[in-house]
Amino acid sequence: MKDIIVQKFGGTSVADIGKMKNVADVIIKEKENGNDVVVVVSAMGHTTDHLVKLAHEINPNPSERELDMLMSTGECVSMSLLTMALQAKGYKAVSYNAAQIGIITENVHTKARIVDIKTDRLRKSLEEGKIIVIAGFQGVTTDGEITTLGRGGSDTSAVAIASALGAKRCDIYTDVEGVYTTDPRVVPNASRLNEISYEEMLELAHAGANVLHPRSVETAKQYKMPLRVRSTFKYENKGTLILGVEDMEINKPVAGVAADLSQIRVVVCDIPDTPGEAAILFGSLAKENISVDMIIQSYARKSSNTNDIAFTINKEDLAKTQEVLFSVKDKLNAGDISFDDNIAKVSIIGAGMIDRPGIASTMFKTLADNGINIRMISTSEIKISCLINKEDAQKAVKALHEIFNLGCDEIAEVKGTLPDV
Amino acid sequence: MKDIIVQKFGGTSVADIGKMKNVADVIIKEKENGNDVVVVVSAMGHTTDHLVKLAHEINPNPSERELDMLMSTGECVSMSLLTMALQAKGYKAVSYNAAQIGIITENVHTKARIVDIKTDRLRKSLEEGKIIVIAGFQGVTTDGEITTLGRGGSDTSAVAIASALGAKRCDIYTDVEGVYTTDPRVVPNASRLNEISYEEMLELAHAGANVLHPRSVETAKQYKMPLRVRSTFKYENKGTLILGVEDMEINKPVAGVAADLSQIRVVVCDIPDTPGEAAILFGSLAKENISVDMIIQSYARKSSNTNDIAFTINKEDLAKTQEVLFSVKDKLNAGDISFDDNIAKVSIIGAGMIDRPGIASTMFKTLADNGINIRMISTSEIKISCLINKEDAQKAVKALHEIFNLGCDEIAEVKGTLPDV
Repeated sequence: MKDIIVQKFGGTSVADIGKMKNVADVIIKEKENGNDVVVVVSAMGHTTDHLVKLAHEINPNPSERELDMLMSTGECVSMSLLTMALQAKGYKAVSYNAAQIGIITENVHTKARIVDIKTDRLRKSLEEGKIIVIAGFQGVTTDGEITTLGRGGSDTSAVAIASALGAKRCDIYTDVEGVYTTDPRVVPNASRLNEISYEEMLELAHAGANVLHPRSVETAKQYKMPLRVRSTFKYENKGTLILGVEDMEINKPVAGVAADLSQIRVVVCDIPDTPGEAAILFGSLAKENISVDMIIQSYARKSSNTNDIAFTINKEDLAKTQEVLFSVKDKLNAGDISFDDNIAKVSIIGAGMIDRPGIASTMFKTLADNGINIRMISTSEIKISCLINKEDAQKAVKALHEIFNLGCDEIAEVKGTLPDV
Repeated sequence: MKDIIVQKFGGTSVADIGKMKNVADVIIKEKENGNDVVVVVSAMGHTTDHLVKLAHEINPNPSERELDMLMSTGECVSMSLLTMALQAKGYKAVSYNAAQIGIITENVHTKARIVDIKTDRLRKSLEEGKIIVIAGFQGVTTDGEITTLGRGGSDTSAVAIASALGAKRCDIYTDVEGVYTTDPRVVPNASRLNEISYEEMLELAHAGANVLHPRSVETAKQYKMPLRVRSTFKYENKGTLILGVEDMEINKPVAGVAADLSQIRVVVCDIPDTPGEAAILFGSLAKENISVDMIIQSYARKSSNTNDIAFTINKEDLAKTQEVLFSVKDKLNAGDISFDDNIAKVSIIGAGMIDRPGIASTMFKTLADNGINIRMISTSEIKISCLINKEDAQKAVKALHEIFNLGCDEIAEVKGTLPDV
């Protein structure tokens, strides 16, 4: 039996007819390598954004069910056009939407999770020698309602389909050449990683490296599905393979450095030092689905017997957070609440740091040597994050990248503009 | 139980967000009249043409299955946006594609026929007080393959759904105000018909009045579903009701005059006068799905013992017809084959002509009085057609419209440009 390779192509890879023909060539190369190929495709270019804009023009508050009905059409357009491109080059190919295969999700709109994928129809088409092209981002409930999977949804579709089919590998084709030790726009000699573990990739993703959505990495980790991030436009470049830490040979304690500029620091002052106050605070935030990252509680002040609690949230949750906090403020009997967006979270990530002491102190010393003040610290087994002032973010990334010896001799091809700092 | 009204809106009625909001108002008026409302909608404006163009850019000969996958997305976009427009105005509404309801068709692509429509889901939504918006033009096979219904497909969807639900009426909203005695662009005082029978409408449609596709009228006739053609932009105008001839009071022998400029006259000369020759000729054409209209066979010439056979075909079948004829020419041992597109078929239509003699002779005399030469004639119970030279078409229509007293005092609002004559 042939190996199955699942390939996923994002919106920029299929933005127009010319690019779609290029993608067809990439697919055919994998087929000619002797593999069975299953393709997952996103909507062309900015189609989804355009559809959402239309929806808001007709209804300022469109129902999520109808939004899903609308948005799911984008992938159906690209899948059928891509299938036609393959057929034009003389290959047998067939497109399927989520309902036709049975990509079953929970009954939740705009951010459903996949619960099951039927493979009968897929296996039959593969047996017939066909290349299969599947609409990403969408699912269907057991009642036949159309759902979408939210951000990074097509990546998640690809990984879930690869797992269901027992594929050899899932290749995520994108406009970057792989996963880098840090943002090449900040550090020009950043190295492309040949391999990285799921855990490291997850921490990198959460820490602001926007190559893959965390959910797709989590799914790959769960099913131990090797994931390759590679460039649609440079097939000869093998990109970065993401796999289980047990399958890796770890040479360096730190695999990458990332800066996250999308956090906001919140401080709630003068909370009475009585049991249960923190639970009320974070319970209320959790109820509204607000993710809280770093948390620091000050020592209780003897004089007033109150605490300050500081934590970080994502920028896009600011309005919701303010609403929640002002509604529980009185209940908590708390004092002032302040918000600060002049912050950056700089993280070093590496599965190798577990059994090598001194990594944290090297990080703190390097920041200090560069005159950078650390405002908060959080750590996990494979990550150390420091909250610093936004204007120090680039300097910090450069210094940490150098001290942990992550650079290479080549200068990476720089794409896009530097994020606002 | 409330009456169910099915409303169908074409592409020009939902061409943009503004027009879609207008359509929502029309739907709401019908709902506020105390009816249950089921809406069938086409793709926005020229969406389908645009998708087909993309398909041909990527593959000069796209597979019909993938074309159906592609084209069916257009209606899914408009149905969800229209549903959002209804919700924005405070009404409960839900959209369904063909697969979700179960609009079952034969397993044929790009021109499938509906074989069954499930109504469970529709009835449940109506019971919940919802306005239902359905994607027209599309169906699904029992294997879950997506099909489309071909030209006039959304009209056919609407009529079939109305029949399945036992609706009181099916309203076809369009950019004209109804069915006219003839093309108002040719005869400015053409009258809008208040009523017309299915049979007359069918003949009118086949004779070149492009208001409704014949298939939708046939379906309506089969299920005795009253059909109203009316303007999206003038709700107060009741349009034209199409119904069974038994339910009509017929005042005039002739209901309308139509000219069809899309025919081509074919003459196959010197066919030996032996049995079976015509069967071979028309059998070969039928096998290629070429519709043949008027047929005339000349008397066999004594000298050579051969016939000439003349018939008309549709312009778009010309290439296919030439192919078939040149391949059977030798088998028939026939002589020259000629094609003439300088022709027009002018028809008078009326259920009232069955029991009123003299209609045909009035038509022939009127044409003769106007110096118009008749090249071929064909008749049915409710239609008489004459083939004439193209340049005489307008003169013929005007003269026949007047002699059969079809005009009214008002000048119809003229839309569009006159067809090429």
